[in-house]
Amino acid sequence: MTDIDESVPESTVKAIERAVDQGSFPELAAVLDGLPTGQLVEILERLDRSRRAIAYRILPKHRALEAFEILDATLQRDLVSGLQDEQTTELFAALDPDDRVELLDELPASVARRLLQGLPAGEREMTAEILGYPHGSIGRRMSPEFVRVLPETTTATALTRLADHLDDAETIYTLPVTDDDRALIGVVSLRDLLKAPPGTTIAEVQQPAQWVHATDDAETAARRCADLKLLALPVVDNETRIVGILTVDDALSILETADSEDQARISGVEPLRRPYLSAPVLDLMRSRIVWLLVLAVGATLTVQVLEVFEETLAEVVTLALFIPLLIGTGGNTGNQAATTVTRALALGDVKPRDVGKVLFREFRVGLSLGLALGALAFLLTSAIYSTSIGTVIGLTFVALCTIAATVGGVMPLVARAVRADPAVFANPFISTFIDASGLLIYFFIAKAVLGI
Amino acid sequence: MTDIDESVPESTVKAIERAVDQGSFPELAAVLDGLPTGQLVEILERLDRSRRAIAYRILPKHRALEAFEILDATLQRDLVSGLQDEQTTELFAALDPDDRVELLDELPASVARRLLQGLPAGEREMTAEILGYPHGSIGRRMSPEFVRVLPETTTATALTRLADHLDDAETIYTLPVTDDDRALIGVVSLRDLLKAPPGTTIAEVQQPAQWVHATDDAETAARRCADLKLLALPVVDNETRIVGILTVDDALSILETADSEDQARISGVEPLRRPYLSAPVLDLMRSRIVWLLVLAVGATLTVQVLEVFEETLAEVVTLALFIPLLIGTGGNTGNQAATTVTRALALGDVKPRDVGKVLFREFRVGLSLGLALGALAFLLTSAIYSTSIGTVIGLTFVALCTIAATVGGVMPLVARAVRADPAVFANPFISTFIDASGLLIYFFIAKAVLGI
Repeated sequence: MTDIDESVPESTVKAIERAVDQGSFPELAAVLDGLPTGQLVEILERLDRSRRAIAYRILPKHRALEAFEILDATLQRDLVSGLQDEQTTELFAALDPDDRVELLDELPASVARRLLQGLPAGEREMTAEILGYPHGSIGRRMSPEFVRVLPETTTATALTRLADHLDDAETIYTLPVTDDDRALIGVVSLRDLLKAPPGTTIAEVQQPAQWVHATDDAETAARRCADLKLLALPVVDNETRIVGILTVDDALSILETADSEDQARISGVEPLRRPYLSAPVLDLMRSRIVWLLVLAVGATLTVQVLEVFEETLAEVVTLALFIPLLIGTGGNTGNQAATTVTRALALGDVKPRDVGKVLFREFRVGLSLGLALGALAFLLTSAIYSTSIGTVIGLTFVALCTIAATVGGVMPLVARAVRADPAVFANPFISTFIDASGLLIYFFIAKAVLGI
Repeated sequence: MTDIDESVPESTVKAIERAVDQGSFPELAAVLDGLPTGQLVEILERLDRSRRAIAYRILPKHRALEAFEILDATLQRDLVSGLQDEQTTELFAALDPDDRVELLDELPASVARRLLQGLPAGEREMTAEILGYPHGSIGRRMSPEFVRVLPETTTATALTRLADHLDDAETIYTLPVTDDDRALIGVVSLRDLLKAPPGTTIAEVQQPAQWVHATDDAETAARRCADLKLLALPVVDNETRIVGILTVDDALSILETADSEDQARISGVEPLRRPYLSAPVLDLMRSRIVWLLVLAVGATLTVQVLEVFEETLAEVVTLALFIPLLIGTGGNTGNQAATTVTRALALGDVKPRDVGKVLFREFRVGLSLGLALGALAFLLTSAIYSTSIGTVIGLTFVALCTIAATVGGVMPLVARAVRADPAVFANPFISTFIDASGLLIYFFIAKAVLGI
């Protein structure tokens, strides 16, 4: 019995690094082979690239395959580039068709072609079918290996048929029910098959099918599988003929990647495509520099706005003191609204057609927030500076929060409507917009109230 | 055959709202009953509270239960408060023990107690066991209904035993193997049971078990289930005796909630506990006002810093022009690092003990980003303003980016080490800190370079 309850202790990682460096391969093999797959993968992910390649080559074949299946596609690619052709072909053939396509996307085209040619004909065909669907569609991530049954079949026959496919089907726990033309009619669970009294037909135990189209967005399909708490969701073509099945574990990994991407883009970073510690520093820098530059260029707008009001600033230097506080609060209010709506979009709680409802809600929320903060700011700044400064700051809070929440809430919907990533449009761009327009509002109010 | 491929059209929602308002209940019942469960739940989520209660009461009993099981716990609570005691008791008894506990957490203590007392003894015992584990632990979310088998049992006997529990076990696809004292020894999949030739014992087909402790953090346990691509993960007590099982669909919903929370807190909002459109505006405001206030109070630090340098500002008003650009870029750099590390922590790619590695990585990333942006800023501002202003801005970029990335990367690890939520500490607090320290750095460099 093996325990992966505790994560791998740092001392084990260090010991393995030493063993690799000193070339004590027999001990290394013994230690690695004794680990459960979860820990093995964790260690492979924590080693640097060259040590990882050595440790991996030492593993016995079946352990190597087990670990390979769980590894990130980017790490799979690194490993493949260090292996001999023969080993690679073997590993590649042992993968499920959907995992195979994910790895193919990572490999240089020439390597991908060679690997595909090395596959047995049946496997190659299934892989090619998946490769035919557009990037980002569920067709790319589904499994074409499933067992379908006809409605007139008896449950006993279905169970026998299932017994012949125990090794190759991706899931045996949910079976699509189709007519002779493969058109989806329903689904039947293995649980219901086992429960059915002898002589029952599939038609009597099948459930209505929920399905997705192969060209549907992978994240949407995965979210549906999750929301409906299904173990597997059938994938159909335009004539509702079944072409594959999405299993819940694949749905989970699609959602994990999608959430990582949303979270990254909301904060203006390109998502890392590999575990943090295994990513070269150059990759980390690359995932950030473009965003930083774009945002900094956007922020030069604030410099230009301030230049316009340079005289006002020179006259009342006190106004400069509140600039970071005001644009910070505006940015925070906008971010809050944008994040909330982006997440609601991702979860399917809000659709682009709800734009009117969202606008009205966020307007009210922003106005209430602005009134609350503005009143407080007015009291404090009036007491410390002067009533006129207090009035300027208070009014700016009200206007800024209202605009920030409204724009922040609506932008993700606009982004989705024009088929851009809501997370990208959500926060970074909103901040830049709010910074510049916030300064404009601030100085207009200041000039009006202070009479300068 | 029903199609939930397209989400519910707005016209259907409107028609249902009209039918509720006009009291045309027979038509309403017919329309609702004809919808697949997924669409039914979507509609219930989109209706406002009082219409939802009416629509729900019109559903036939088995459809009502189906929908109830999928609904958010907060919406379940709303519905329960509008139902008669008898109906509630019935719904409550039909829920799985883990879903029941989730609902209990939402209900007022008196209602919860009454409902618990209404349960049959066996169900009440299972529910009470789950209620005994701490909030946030996987013990609260696991299912106590599973079928365990002994290693010496034959696979045929195990299958027969399974057949008796097809209705009450949460999953029949992964069975824990235990000794007589319920201590976990391994797991066996239904697939392997079906594949085994007659006369095989469980011991011959079982796999090593991966497990979690009932008191472990629910998110960590769910992430493990996902990472290992398991359909179910056994949950054990301190003596590694099995007490429950975590199924992948429950793991998925735990992860979805956790990711929503992280995403919200990274942007300084309290997570909404119900679908966006069904949340009252007051709830939206409440989820934001505290954060906004705390951050605004933190930002008054920037006002104080600027007050210290008010004379310098009065002397060289040009310095004020760059304040939003500089603190904006510092904030962005810090957010990027914090978000990346927070996500890596959530995914288990980084542990608190990696603090040294993260610090060194982020220092190098920040320095390179600062050098790149600083060089560009120096060239541009030197050309437009003066070499001395260019030098100030360029140097500030270098220092600011280095500090922001380092602090941003390390803070989430510090938060985790002191058992705070990394997402909370991650971005909002870092921004405030970087805003204030960035201004200090800026003015120190300005005074040194400009000699004022």
